[in-house]
Amino acid sequence: MSEEYPGYSKDAIEVLKKVGAEIWSIVEIKTQSATYKGILLPRYQLSEPGFIEIKLESGYNIGIKLTKDIDIKVVGKREGKYQIPEKSFPTNKKLPNIKLFGTGGTVASRLDYTTGAVIPAFTPGELFSAVPELADICNLDTEIVFEILSENMRPSYWQQLATKIEKEANSGIDGIVIGHGTDTMGFTSAALSFMLKDLSVPVVIVGSQRSSDRPSSDSALNLINATTVAANSDLAEVVVCMLGSSSHKYGLIHRGTLVRKMHSSVRHTFRTIGDIPLGKVENGKIKMLKREYRKRNKSKTKAITDFEEKVGLVYSYPGITNDIIDFYVDEKYKGIVIAGTGLGHTPTYIYDSIKRATDEGIVLLMVTQCLNGFVGMNVYSTGRELLELGVIAGKNMLPEVAYVKLGWVLGQTQNPEEVKNLLLTNVAGEFLEREIPIAFNYNAEEL
Amino acid sequence: MSEEYPGYSKDAIEVLKKVGAEIWSIVEIKTQSATYKGILLPRYQLSEPGFIEIKLESGYNIGIKLTKDIDIKVVGKREGKYQIPEKSFPTNKKLPNIKLFGTGGTVASRLDYTTGAVIPAFTPGELFSAVPELADICNLDTEIVFEILSENMRPSYWQQLATKIEKEANSGIDGIVIGHGTDTMGFTSAALSFMLKDLSVPVVIVGSQRSSDRPSSDSALNLINATTVAANSDLAEVVVCMLGSSSHKYGLIHRGTLVRKMHSSVRHTFRTIGDIPLGKVENGKIKMLKREYRKRNKSKTKAITDFEEKVGLVYSYPGITNDIIDFYVDEKYKGIVIAGTGLGHTPTYIYDSIKRATDEGIVLLMVTQCLNGFVGMNVYSTGRELLELGVIAGKNMLPEVAYVKLGWVLGQTQNPEEVKNLLLTNVAGEFLEREIPIAFNYNAEEL
Repeated sequence: MSEEYPGYSKDAIEVLKKVGAEIWSIVEIKTQSATYKGILLPRYQLSEPGFIEIKLESGYNIGIKLTKDIDIKVVGKREGKYQIPEKSFPTNKKLPNIKLFGTGGTVASRLDYTTGAVIPAFTPGELFSAVPELADICNLDTEIVFEILSENMRPSYWQQLATKIEKEANSGIDGIVIGHGTDTMGFTSAALSFMLKDLSVPVVIVGSQRSSDRPSSDSALNLINATTVAANSDLAEVVVCMLGSSSHKYGLIHRGTLVRKMHSSVRHTFRTIGDIPLGKVENGKIKMLKREYRKRNKSKTKAITDFEEKVGLVYSYPGITNDIIDFYVDEKYKGIVIAGTGLGHTPTYIYDSIKRATDEGIVLLMVTQCLNGFVGMNVYSTGRELLELGVIAGKNMLPEVAYVKLGWVLGQTQNPEEVKNLLLTNVAGEFLEREIPIAFNYNAEEL
Repeated sequence: MSEEYPGYSKDAIEVLKKVGAEIWSIVEIKTQSATYKGILLPRYQLSEPGFIEIKLESGYNIGIKLTKDIDIKVVGKREGKYQIPEKSFPTNKKLPNIKLFGTGGTVASRLDYTTGAVIPAFTPGELFSAVPELADICNLDTEIVFEILSENMRPSYWQQLATKIEKEANSGIDGIVIGHGTDTMGFTSAALSFMLKDLSVPVVIVGSQRSSDRPSSDSALNLINATTVAANSDLAEVVVCMLGSSSHKYGLIHRGTLVRKMHSSVRHTFRTIGDIPLGKVENGKIKMLKREYRKRNKSKTKAITDFEEKVGLVYSYPGITNDIIDFYVDEKYKGIVIAGTGLGHTPTYIYDSIKRATDEGIVLLMVTQCLNGFVGMNVYSTGRELLELGVIAGKNMLPEVAYVKLGWVLGQTQNPEEVKNLLLTNVAGEFLEREIPIAFNYNAEEL
């Protein structure tokens, strides 16, 4: 990392040098849509190439991509000096050992009072400075696996992450926490659930909905809750642990294959769909709400990461045309998840293309775009006809989970019978035995 | 309609005659997947071409499509005689006049005790026999506009329906009820909301989640609630009225542009998203929960039905490829709704295709796949970059509603500025001023 421009990529540094901008310079940046004025901040993780970060007068930090159209100039200089946090994370042999994997974004942060800048925290020492409560929960080690924006997640990153977790779980760690952006957290939790066979310890995915430099940030509380679950729960599953309910008093523990981001901005955005959450965590105490889950054990964790990327995800709607399905056939896709209406329907006017797809060996997996409930393709004749065309009924799987599962299954085998069998096997809790009435639209306060 | 084979299409009648099957014959039907034995039933609405209906020994009625592979033979004859309901719907000049439009499916039904068959009810006389409570609410007239399975909905049907409603609303009717399958009810309610300008009376869409021949059917109760709202509410909006909450004691009144089917099978599947419902209806009483809505008035209702069908709907996911966006560009689509992750994101690795699409004049409208909450494309640099590429931020619109709105807007104008203005105008309550905290995951019992 550049010492002069910590956290900045080469191309960003080039632009900054050209205009004479240093860290702590006050810069004015004109993009096509707006003008921003603020202090050029140091970054403590390598940012996306070409991005710079400034602190606006409002106190917010924003990232801006330096494109060709952007006009940047120095208009002043902020007095102040950046201080590296010096504390080190205390060790306590009585506490569990936890590994925190970073995937991008800020896990936690603290204010640098000399400059007013927010210092992202990721190393154990930095995290201890930012969230000292962590030292009462565990001994912490951290590692950045990759650094991306969560919306840029790809199957290859899941493979990297699963391989890291396999190694770590088999090296005697007591629990694993993964810092992750919230946009695709539910996809990643599903992918790791399928990829990690015979998991021996909890794998807890956590993030924040409000940036850690905002007073309303949920990052410290989420991190404390997630670390508590990783250190002290008897789970050996991939779970998401984020604040639950609008009171924000506790975190909810969501099974990795049943969780979905259901609100773009609130902090209690993650919900278990089809069931109630596995458990709650509040003030360091874990309360399990479900009895059936995989328990900590001495298994050797195996990462089974092959993934077929030629899989599509299509939501059905009135007016959808044959040519969308035909496109996937023409492009030699191996599978398509159809999020049908109601119990798992598409218009009968696209059956020709569906038949063509299954005739050519493409696996079609049907789920419901209602998100809640099972497909029920034997109820109406149109559903039965889709089954006769070779469409596979995906039970209660969320569309996103079905997409991840289909990619993973087709990575394991492309033998039609084996694919079908594996798709209909409950690999990682993605199928419910049956839905309990309270599950639909549960109120977490009452659990 | 054939008197011998009521409700059957020509091709079905041909097959039935060939094997000597009459109405009330006991038939055995072998399809590729199963064998069904039951009584061939009369139908009281014209079925989808090629379908026949039989009553199984279990008491359920099922529809089966007569395809070439199907083997059908007569194995017996049921004694009994079908009785046309003879009662006529009473007229009471003090009660409001309501028009019920049929779009397919069974609105209500009653048992024919001589045969055990379920008789679908649609004419006013039949409905009075099936649901006599209706006569205490209104004077009823009925008309079948078209007969389709709801999953086969198309924009052209919305146009037909809107034109019928315009005529009826302007002829002095007090309210309109539309019987509709639940699969695409939320799409239709949005489409009619946009298409019906200056609406003067309530337009209430209703259906049933459980077939009306089942003891657990919600059809009669929904019909009573919907008719109550059409007759007695002071609304002049398109709404969905279906059972609310698992107690099933009351119906909820959902604004047509904010409603979504959220469960594949439960009866209280419809939920207002982003807000609380407009109102409740229970035991003939209407309680409005919101104060801002369009009131009954003397306007002349205008159906503005032009609709651009070359509009796509794409949910973003990790691993989505450029070629999906490219496909829509290549196929000369005019608009694409992207249901992005979180605040309205796609992977940056498909920006090339997004730029190509907007460069070629395709309208890209971003909404959130979280369903709840607003897109917030100014929060992160990637969102700002999408805006700079010409993507339009769709605020809090549901993906399905955004799809319908974009098709409708592009039907009105294809001038880029006008399209953008109309997309950002609150046409039919699809945009919230702001979201109230209780809206996310409200409990209808507590409203």
